[in-house]
Amino acid sequence: MTQPRPAGQHTVRRHNSALVLAAVAESPGISRAGVAARTGLTKATVSSLVDRLIGASLVHDAGPERRPGPGRRGTSLSLCPSGPHGLGVEIGVDYVATCLVDLTGRTRHERVRPAENRSRPVPEVLAEVAAELTAALGEAGALGVAVGGIGVAVPGLVEASTGLLRRAPNLDWDDVDVPAELRDRAALPDVEILVGNEANFAALAELWAGGHTGPRDFVHVSGEIGIGAGIVIGGELFDGVHGFGGELGHFPVTPDGPRCTCGARGCLERLAGQDVILERAGAADLGDLLDRLVAGEDRAAGAVREAGRWLGTALSAVVNLLDVPAVVLGGTYAHLHPWLADPLRAELRARVLGGPWSPVEVLRSDLGTEAAVRGAAASAVRTILADPDAFMASLS
Amino acid sequence: MTQPRPAGQHTVRRHNSALVLAAVAESPGISRAGVAARTGLTKATVSSLVDRLIGASLVHDAGPERRPGPGRRGTSLSLCPSGPHGLGVEIGVDYVATCLVDLTGRTRHERVRPAENRSRPVPEVLAEVAAELTAALGEAGALGVAVGGIGVAVPGLVEASTGLLRRAPNLDWDDVDVPAELRDRAALPDVEILVGNEANFAALAELWAGGHTGPRDFVHVSGEIGIGAGIVIGGELFDGVHGFGGELGHFPVTPDGPRCTCGARGCLERLAGQDVILERAGAADLGDLLDRLVAGEDRAAGAVREAGRWLGTALSAVVNLLDVPAVVLGGTYAHLHPWLADPLRAELRARVLGGPWSPVEVLRSDLGTEAAVRGAAASAVRTILADPDAFMASLS
Repeated sequence: MTQPRPAGQHTVRRHNSALVLAAVAESPGISRAGVAARTGLTKATVSSLVDRLIGASLVHDAGPERRPGPGRRGTSLSLCPSGPHGLGVEIGVDYVATCLVDLTGRTRHERVRPAENRSRPVPEVLAEVAAELTAALGEAGALGVAVGGIGVAVPGLVEASTGLLRRAPNLDWDDVDVPAELRDRAALPDVEILVGNEANFAALAELWAGGHTGPRDFVHVSGEIGIGAGIVIGGELFDGVHGFGGELGHFPVTPDGPRCTCGARGCLERLAGQDVILERAGAADLGDLLDRLVAGEDRAAGAVREAGRWLGTALSAVVNLLDVPAVVLGGTYAHLHPWLADPLRAELRARVLGGPWSPVEVLRSDLGTEAAVRGAAASAVRTILADPDAFMASLS
Repeated sequence: MTQPRPAGQHTVRRHNSALVLAAVAESPGISRAGVAARTGLTKATVSSLVDRLIGASLVHDAGPERRPGPGRRGTSLSLCPSGPHGLGVEIGVDYVATCLVDLTGRTRHERVRPAENRSRPVPEVLAEVAAELTAALGEAGALGVAVGGIGVAVPGLVEASTGLLRRAPNLDWDDVDVPAELRDRAALPDVEILVGNEANFAALAELWAGGHTGPRDFVHVSGEIGIGAGIVIGGELFDGVHGFGGELGHFPVTPDGPRCTCGARGCLERLAGQDVILERAGAADLGDLLDRLVAGEDRAAGAVREAGRWLGTALSAVVNLLDVPAVVLGGTYAHLHPWLADPLRAELRARVLGGPWSPVEVLRSDLGTEAAVRGAAASAVRTILADPDAFMASLS
């Protein structure tokens, strides 16, 4: 046991800045006195911190608080709508998406550009991603806002200790230093670049979209060409010791099954991934598949049912292991939810041991395929909110 | 955000008692001055708390500290060897085990009695468990020690909120209130009775056996007739929202495989559980199997190899999901480790996506099949150590 180290003035201010900013974020329209009451800081300290946060365009002062009755009016504080924005980019297997969000996480701009990334050389893909980032920076300029942080979502294993993309099976990429490669190809602002697994960013987007009333314990399943999961326990992302957790796509659901891009056999991805569903359904793309499903085409419905059964098989293992009360279907699976959920639930009912006492909820994400890129952009903003002093120091 | 509630005198003493006891537990032989230095409490406070802990037989004062050189001698404090003991009992599928541990977790008495619990009515099994508890209480009496807490390990789902054993597939038990049933059948002391899943208790025993230098992130796999896992993350047991986590035995490794006691098909237990291994090997029991393995019998080696492959298939899914760096083989699997580990490692190598950057360690537990009952007994003791004031209040 070691004694806690004394907190210096600098540490205290840093902590208090974050506390004040959190109070403003949680109660838009709050007054300085309100912030003081909420944080336990003196009004003088709050005033001084708020002034610094206003100076850095993190907080906006909308003038006198609107409330009826007598007494002195405070002023109305909120996160600054024209403050630093978060820029998210997702390097998908068959698209590149970008997204700009303000400090509250509101989407200001979003673009998804189809791209056959798995059949092209790495530098070519990176050049296109850089071009998309440049275009998004242009949008930020047009909106008159600065980009305060960048989040990059990738379909692979990102090593927490190094930030390297170690392996993206569906892109066939190995050991790519994504931030460095993008900085070489685009004039990016001197801000932090976070890289993370797309399924984890999507799960965070889902968590944050739910706010204080949404589920705090769930597994979010992103169905795309790859299948990834983001595990949220007690309102926190759980991604393992190295950050490699959540690789649901490589669950061996039928160990002697077809060969997967990861080298192994019978992975869930090869039985319930988007490509396999489309092929089994005889559909050209997701839009075509949805049309066939709505039209009641047997072959399409059967293909989705089969995927639902395999997905349910793997998810029953996840629930038996982690005892999470809810599964949230995202990405392609959110679109397929009406046809996918029942066969999936049937497997959960048959296989989850704790089911009779705690039935697993199967929910549908409202965020669609943009969840990951929004989560990446929102993560960039949340990094600023969690440590505004670090952000302000980077400005000078 | 709510303000932290003020801590009353009672809360403070309660907290400080636990702090003092933890200092004594971590540094046997420490003086009162040493405890004061370590905890930041005044010497007067420490003396008063230590006196109360000595009065409750939680701490033992061995007299003047033995150290060379001049200066006043302190006294030498340690956990009281004759203090309250923890009594563990495990209701196994084919045995009942009991165990007594002292405050340091040292085993004072242990007994494993074979029993065919799956083919007998519930009341008959409970009567025998009660008889074993009574015998263990007799052993405590013979040792001249009191039992301060009881831990019960069961092979099934224990609901955290109610303490009910909801379902034990291999016993075919449903909704049993184990503490109440045992109190009805044995004169148990008026102490807390903890009920928990045997795999979770075994994982805790493994964690505690490792002390400060052992692994803090691992999945402990208990191979018995059932297969259970205990997940330890950052030195804490992770057992899910309802306490139903870790059900590795019902991983669907081959979804169309043989019917399991849980009602589903192709569960890991039916492909790598002890019964299946013995049957495939043509062995009468574990001892016979080990003899055949040592003698190099092909059929026995093949049966264990096949179990290793299935176990490796399921564990690769666990590692892909949780990104844990180590697997610890316990129970029957610890005995089979020399023949089981290689095929298991081969599956992990083939299937774990993060493996090339973080190879998964496959370790062998030294605790053997007694891990669960020891973990149950040690949990009872740790409950006392964590809140000695609650224990002292129960004495009066």
